Amino acid sequence: MKVGGKPFRTIWPCADGETVEVIDQTLLPHEFRTLRLATLADAARAIKTMQVRGAPLIGATAAYGLAMGLRDDPSDVALAAGYDVLLATRPTAVNLRWALDAVRAEVAPLGTQTRAAAAFARAAAICDEDVAICRAIGEHGLKLVRAAYEAHGRSRPVQIMTHCNAGWLACVDWGTATAPIYLAHDEGIPVHVWVDETRPRNQGAGLTAWELGGHGVAHTVIVDNAGGHVMQRGNVDLLITGTDRVTANGDVANKIGTYLKALAAADNNVPFYVALPGPTIDWTIADGIRDIPIEERDPSEVTMISGRASDGRVISVRVTPASSPAANYAFDVTPARLVTGLITERGICAASRDGLLGLYPERK
Amino acid sequence: MKVGGKPFRTIWPCADGETVEVIDQTLLPHEFRTLRLATLADAARAIKTMQVRGAPLIGATAAYGLAMGLRDDPSDVALAAGYDVLLATRPTAVNLRWALDAVRAEVAPLGTQTRAAAAFARAAAICDEDVAICRAIGEHGLKLVRAAYEAHGRSRPVQIMTHCNAGWLACVDWGTATAPIYLAHDEGIPVHVWVDETRPRNQGAGLTAWELGGHGVAHTVIVDNAGGHVMQRGNVDLLITGTDRVTANGDVANKIGTYLKALAAADNNVPFYVALPGPTIDWTIADGIRDIPIEERDPSEVTMISGRASDGRVISVRVTPASSPAANYAFDVTPARLVTGLITERGICAASRDGLLGLYPERK
Repeated sequence: MKVGGKPFRTIWPCADGETVEVIDQTLLPHEFRTLRLATLADAARAIKTMQVRGAPLIGATAAYGLAMGLRDDPSDVALAAGYDVLLATRPTAVNLRWALDAVRAEVAPLGTQTRAAAAFARAAAICDEDVAICRAIGEHGLKLVRAAYEAHGRSRPVQIMTHCNAGWLACVDWGTATAPIYLAHDEGIPVHVWVDETRPRNQGAGLTAWELGGHGVAHTVIVDNAGGHVMQRGNVDLLITGTDRVTANGDVANKIGTYLKALAAADNNVPFYVALPGPTIDWTIADGIRDIPIEERDPSEVTMISGRASDGRVISVRVTPASSPAANYAFDVTPARLVTGLITERGICAASRDGLLGLYPERK
Repeated sequence: MKVGGKPFRTIWPCADGETVEVIDQTLLPHEFRTLRLATLADAARAIKTMQVRGAPLIGATAAYGLAMGLRDDPSDVALAAGYDVLLATRPTAVNLRWALDAVRAEVAPLGTQTRAAAAFARAAAICDEDVAICRAIGEHGLKLVRAAYEAHGRSRPVQIMTHCNAGWLACVDWGTATAPIYLAHDEGIPVHVWVDETRPRNQGAGLTAWELGGHGVAHTVIVDNAGGHVMQRGNVDLLITGTDRVTANGDVANKIGTYLKALAAADNNVPFYVALPGPTIDWTIADGIRDIPIEERDPSEVTMISGRASDGRVISVRVTPASSPAANYAFDVTPARLVTGLITERGICAASRDGLLGLYPERK
C-alpha cells in the first residue's frame, strides 16, 4: 500500500539478489526506515525483536532467512540447523513453520550448488502468493463492507473496528483484516476504522493507525478498554481482526485482548469476522483453549512504554512502580462460538470444522 | 493505609485549620509528594487535573473546597457560585454533588460568621464517615474473600482481579474495592491481586500497584487486554471493582473497560462484585446505558503516555502517529445482568432495584 504516495511492500529483494530489505516496524509510527537483512541470523533477529511481525510477514522473512543461510552454507546440516533457529523465533506462529517447510521441501532434493537460488525463488514466490491471498481475502471481505454500506442506505460511513495490526505491515501487501477496508476505500465506499491501541506493544496505535493514515483511510484511535463502550453505543458495524492460528474447530488465537472484543461484539450483535490465509489454520488441533500454548513475553513490555518525546527522540518510559511485578501474555484464544465467520482466500465460512472443511475439502 | 511504613490518609486538614493537604496523585507511582490546597480554586483544579481522583476523595475535596470558599466569602452568592464551580469539575461523579449538598445544607441556615467553621467541620465529618463506610464495605467483602480461601481448602492465595483504582488513594482510607483485600491481608489470608493497567491514565499500573505494594499485598500488573485470558485460564476467584455511579436498577458506570472485564467474568463464571458507598447510588435514574452521560476527555490522554524516563524525569511520550485522531471515553456502563453483587457499607445485595431497596429501604 502507499507510504507518502509511493507503493511499498513490507519485504523485497535487494538488487544483489542475495539480501532483502524490510521496513523496521519497531520505529513506526515515528520514523519510516528500511533495514537490510543480509544473513539468516539477521532474519531471525528481525523476527524475534519484531522489526518484522505479523504471521505472513514472519513466514516470508523466515523463508528469505533460510535462503540466505543456504547461500552461506548449502549443506544438509546447515539446512536443518537454520530451519530450527528460525522456527524457534516465534512458537505461536503456525505459518512460520509452513513457510520453512515449503522452502525445505523445495531445496532438500537438490544438489548443494542450486539450493540457494531455488530457496530465494521459493521465498519470492511465497511473497507473491501472500499478496494474491490477501487480495483474495479482501475481495471476499469487501462483500461484507458493501452489504453494511447498503444496509444503511449508503447514508453514512461503514464503521469497522479492528484490534492489533493485521494490516499490510503484517503481511507483504494489503493485509488480512485490512484488505477489505483498503478495497472498499479504493472503490469509493466511505469507511471509518476504530483502531484499538493494542497494549502492550501498541501495534494498533502505532502501526494500524499509521498505515491507514498513509493510505488515506479515516480512523480514530481508542484505548483497548473503549471497544466495548463503542459497540454498546451502536457505533460499530463490523469487527474484523486477523489471527495467528485458527484451530480445525474454528477457535482463534490472536493478539491478547481479541477475546474481550469478541465478547463485546457478541453482547451487542456486532458481527465478528476473522481474516486469515489458509496456512494459518492448524489442522492438527481442535480445542484452542486447551491446546494452544500462549507465549509469555518479557514483562518489560508491560512496565515500559515506548514513544516519541517532545525533543523528537523515541524513548521508553516506565509506567509501573519499580517494585511491582508484571505478566505479559502475548495472545489469547477466542472460542469459535464467538466468531461470526472466517474470511479466507477461498471465501467466507462459519468458524467450525464443517465450515472450514467446506472451503478446504482436501483436509477431509 | 501505609506508605513507607507510616499510615496516611489521602486528605487531611493542615494545622492552621484553614487549608488541607492531599497526595498529588498525578506524580504517582514515581514520586510521593503532598500538595497544599489553600482555596476553592485550588480544590477545583485538583479535582479537574486529577491530582485527586476517585469518587469519595473528589467528594471530600469538594467539601473542603466549599469550606475554603466560605472562609474567603461566606455570602449566599459566593456559596451558590462555589457550589456551581465545584460541581462542574466532574459531571459523572454523583457523590461530588452529594458532598456539596451536605455542606450547603449545613451552612445555608447559618449566619455568615459561622459558616466557614461549620463547613470545615462538615468536611472533616465527611472524611471520617468515608473511612467508616469503606471499613464497613471491607468487612462485608472480607466474607467473600474468606469464603474463596476456604473453598480451595486454604491451599493457595485467593486470586482477585481489579480494574482502575478503587483503592484508598481514591477514598480517604481503605478504599472500596481494595478494602476487603487489605482486611484479608491484615488478618493473614494470602491474597494475590491482578492489577489491570487501566489505559489511558494507567490508574491500575500507577496507583493500585503502588498502594498494594506499599501495604505489602502481592500483586501482578497486566495490560487491560489480558484480563479475559487470565480468567479463561481459571486464575481469578473474584473480580472486584469500584464504581462512579450505580443506577437504581444496579447498572454500573465505572472506568472505561470495566464492561469488558464484566463480560469476561460472566463468560468464565467468575463472580463480579462492585464495591460502593451508598452515596454512589443514583436513585434518580434506572437505565445506565440510556441515561448516564459518558464524559469524553482530552484525546491527548490516549495519544500521549506519561512515565519515568531512564534519567529519572517523568515525561510524556507520543504513541500514535502525529496525524491520527483519537477518542477518549472516560467511563462505560456495565449492565446489572453482568454484576454478581454490590458490596455496600450495609451489606451485599443483588445488582437490582429489589436488591438495593433491601439495603436502603428508606428509598422505597
